[in-house]
Amino acid sequence: MTAPLTDVAIAQAHTLEPITEIALRAGIPPEALITYGPTKAKVDITRLRPGRDVGKLILVTGISPTPAGEGKSTVLIGLADALTRLGHSAAAALREPSQGPVMGIKGGAAGGGYSQIVPMEDINLHFTGDFHAIAAATNTLAAMVDNHVQQGNALGIDSRRIVWQRCLDVNDRSLRSVITGLGGTAHGTPRETGFTITAASEIMAVLCLAADLPDLKERLARLTVAFTFDGTPVAADELGATGALAALMKEAINPNLVQTLGGTPAYVHGGPFANIAHGCNSLIATQVALRHSDIVLTEAGFGSDLGAEKFFDIKARHGRLDVNAVVIVATIRSLKYNGGLPRTDLGTESLDHLREGVKNLARHVANIQQFGATPIVALNLFTGDTAAERAFLRAWAKDFHVALAECEVWARGGEGAEDLARVVLENLSQGSSLLYDPERGVEHSIEVIARRIYRAEKIEYSPQALRDLAVLRENGWDRLPVCISKTQYSFSDDPTALGAPTGHTLHVRQLIPRTGAGFIVVLTGAVMTMPGLPARPAAEGIDIDDDGRITGLF
Amino acid sequence: MTAPLTDVAIAQAHTLEPITEIALRAGIPPEALITYGPTKAKVDITRLRPGRDVGKLILVTGISPTPAGEGKSTVLIGLADALTRLGHSAAAALREPSQGPVMGIKGGAAGGGYSQIVPMEDINLHFTGDFHAIAAATNTLAAMVDNHVQQGNALGIDSRRIVWQRCLDVNDRSLRSVITGLGGTAHGTPRETGFTITAASEIMAVLCLAADLPDLKERLARLTVAFTFDGTPVAADELGATGALAALMKEAINPNLVQTLGGTPAYVHGGPFANIAHGCNSLIATQVALRHSDIVLTEAGFGSDLGAEKFFDIKARHGRLDVNAVVIVATIRSLKYNGGLPRTDLGTESLDHLREGVKNLARHVANIQQFGATPIVALNLFTGDTAAERAFLRAWAKDFHVALAECEVWARGGEGAEDLARVVLENLSQGSSLLYDPERGVEHSIEVIARRIYRAEKIEYSPQALRDLAVLRENGWDRLPVCISKTQYSFSDDPTALGAPTGHTLHVRQLIPRTGAGFIVVLTGAVMTMPGLPARPAAEGIDIDDDGRITGLF
Repeated sequence: MTAPLTDVAIAQAHTLEPITEIALRAGIPPEALITYGPTKAKVDITRLRPGRDVGKLILVTGISPTPAGEGKSTVLIGLADALTRLGHSAAAALREPSQGPVMGIKGGAAGGGYSQIVPMEDINLHFTGDFHAIAAATNTLAAMVDNHVQQGNALGIDSRRIVWQRCLDVNDRSLRSVITGLGGTAHGTPRETGFTITAASEIMAVLCLAADLPDLKERLARLTVAFTFDGTPVAADELGATGALAALMKEAINPNLVQTLGGTPAYVHGGPFANIAHGCNSLIATQVALRHSDIVLTEAGFGSDLGAEKFFDIKARHGRLDVNAVVIVATIRSLKYNGGLPRTDLGTESLDHLREGVKNLARHVANIQQFGATPIVALNLFTGDTAAERAFLRAWAKDFHVALAECEVWARGGEGAEDLARVVLENLSQGSSLLYDPERGVEHSIEVIARRIYRAEKIEYSPQALRDLAVLRENGWDRLPVCISKTQYSFSDDPTALGAPTGHTLHVRQLIPRTGAGFIVVLTGAVMTMPGLPARPAAEGIDIDDDGRITGLF
Repeated sequence: MTAPLTDVAIAQAHTLEPITEIALRAGIPPEALITYGPTKAKVDITRLRPGRDVGKLILVTGISPTPAGEGKSTVLIGLADALTRLGHSAAAALREPSQGPVMGIKGGAAGGGYSQIVPMEDINLHFTGDFHAIAAATNTLAAMVDNHVQQGNALGIDSRRIVWQRCLDVNDRSLRSVITGLGGTAHGTPRETGFTITAASEIMAVLCLAADLPDLKERLARLTVAFTFDGTPVAADELGATGALAALMKEAINPNLVQTLGGTPAYVHGGPFANIAHGCNSLIATQVALRHSDIVLTEAGFGSDLGAEKFFDIKARHGRLDVNAVVIVATIRSLKYNGGLPRTDLGTESLDHLREGVKNLARHVANIQQFGATPIVALNLFTGDTAAERAFLRAWAKDFHVALAECEVWARGGEGAEDLARVVLENLSQGSSLLYDPERGVEHSIEVIARRIYRAEKIEYSPQALRDLAVLRENGWDRLPVCISKTQYSFSDDPTALGAPTGHTLHVRQLIPRTGAGFIVVLTGAVMTMPGLPARPAAEGIDIDDDGRITGLF
């Protein structure tokens, strides 16, 4: 399991099939295919024949991650290719990478090794322009808000309470907190504001939850941009922005189609943050995949306490999706980390730490069962994993009656996930359920998630959160589903409480209405919505030769 | 000559040819065509067979404009279609519209009426993402500059002298002057800066002057981003940014191919400002067109004193282009405006104002002759033009031995420009020359343009400009060509001095080196590099229906 090549070198050595061939395999009619060069396309959703979901939906999630991640996307892509190898009509439905992190510390997000989506350079850089369209819509709306104030402020907007932020797909800490409108009366009203990264923008969440273009327009119309001096919310539609924003999103709403290294169709569309948003690819892409393929694999961000919960309670609720199996990706390294082994020692065999850390996996398994779905553990093998550690986990799974399969997707691609594919196929169930009824109010929703998923004993609201609750009630927003922003490293809101903590208190600090996306963001800690660059940004390692071949992407 | 339909309605009623057909007609080999849907494409310049220019190049410029413009692009497109109708292999090489003005007051920039490039909605909104790529490169570089300071500032950058600005393709006055980096030490160094609109960014100018990808990289490498505490310039390459910026520009460097309503191939690529940059489409697109078509029509911004002068002395110099004819677009309305008729009265017949205003046209004609090129006046007819006015201008042209042809391009498309096409074909000359030798220094270059083109009597340098001159000399930048930023409404730097002023003084206020683009911007007045929105932005009139049909673009 040596790795002689980089991700970009493996991807560039591969001969891609024409996207028209991939589309045929995916069952997309040629009249609905908008090609972007020979290997990328968008699917024009207005040209698809009406139809209903025929595919089985498999959600890929993970245990509580280490900072390096467990390879969920890589497992998903390998598993999709394994299903293709076994003769099934499979498709992947994934998020789009964000360009900021590509230039920063994290790198790209197109899988890895022999389990990648390609062309990875294009997917990681600009792709078909969806992120740019979202930024254009976001920043056009911001300009219209400030312009409204500048041109006489007929709506009476309180410029201290303009909540709409600009966005850019860069890692740029200097844009987190800025003052705009300086230079005198001809140049706007000075005020404090900030930029988020595009993935954290509300229009990204809107795109990912919209059912179609009319629904997208409705969501854009009801984006809250500001409050007036008497506390009345101001919506984008009141500024006359709805049509222009929707026109800017005309192409972005169509799902992108690419391929895996194993030739499986991959819908790569949308990429919202997994903390202040729901962290899944677009509902439209998932539904297009389900209408045209027999088995669709999709992913939720972070561990299952964050990503899978939001997948069910926000995305599946909005889209009436049934989940037929949930794959929980784990690595021996991350289980030992959850068992208390320091990050620098994760290469060392330690059955004791594994025994302690597997409690984290057990809780993710039990949580998934609460959604009425069948959990399947995918053990993503790494070079240093020992025979004893692997045997321990197989025995654990047997004792606990949990389906588990090892896979080796980075080095072997689809071939390395065939066992996992068979286990998944054997464990498909009928459907899934939701955890709470949002009609019972935001506090009830938070309580159900906190107790049943996070296993918190108490929930405490800050004074700010209590004031926010009052605003939600006043405006009739308190029956929207909740999107809890919490550290991904722990079931609790304390990132150092690894494993399977109990007895803790969930601290609700702030509640932010996302009236366009249609959920309430519940902050339980500080959230950074604009990353920074590290001392040596990945950008410094990226290059392109005279023939246009890119190196240094990972 | 009534106009029953809007531009977008005319464009949408037209059945477009597949872009593959247009490419065949343009002589672009299929292996070099990267399609973006059925009607847009990029031309992969690395896959074109080597070759040399075979086409005749016709530059379209104008007299000193009214605020409404004279319809240069519309005339260019109509003329191209007329040449196609007459059996010639013609191509248009135009700038890309900027999305900010599309949402603001100016509207789109894809011609008008029956002389448009299509699909106009796509061309006006996002198109193939070139502007977004430029913004991504610009803003990534900005993040790397601030990050360098944040991470210890090894190069000793003086954060008060960071000259690299961010950009966005929006009309947003609130971004003209901002303070970034607020919020404490984890969030950057507070400093004053600003955003320009993307069209005004230096990377836009770089894209438009680059010969190929290696040349683009060299230009990106030498972008000046800041000065150190001891006054040494810091280049993008010193931050390790060159490769990443070039990778972000990988697709943007390839010219876009679309079609006119008359089926003429149109290369639409790049869109730099015509004051602080040179205001022409990309050199690469012009050269691709010249290598594959017999007659290529291209445009320069504003009147000929600004646009054509820069076309010759910057673009043609860099690209060793020969211009075979120069079409000077004039309207009777704008001639009367230059003759002193108020804007509100331009619909009124006035031979006196026309007689006075034609002096402006005469000077543009004489100026073009200084470049060794043959001027041809295209009189773009409007509804209110009277027979007497038209007769006056025909007689004037005859007296002055100037080729003149009337055209009616908005209402009649290519058919309305056939006379003009014949006159152009009869007047093609061998080539053109340059006005000054930059090796003689910036002051000499400014003097030659001021005296021979602007007809200024004196040139005055502000104290700031004199300090700037010293910096240029210190760094060896004083032999670059100059890009003079001056009001487009007058030959002088006073926008109220219409007609053909003489005896004035040119006030040089500031000199800004553009080391990546390879020219020195010479400011002779205040320049706004970030427009604002009007009281009723065009965005409010834009809409999209459930089938994705856009209305309200103009």
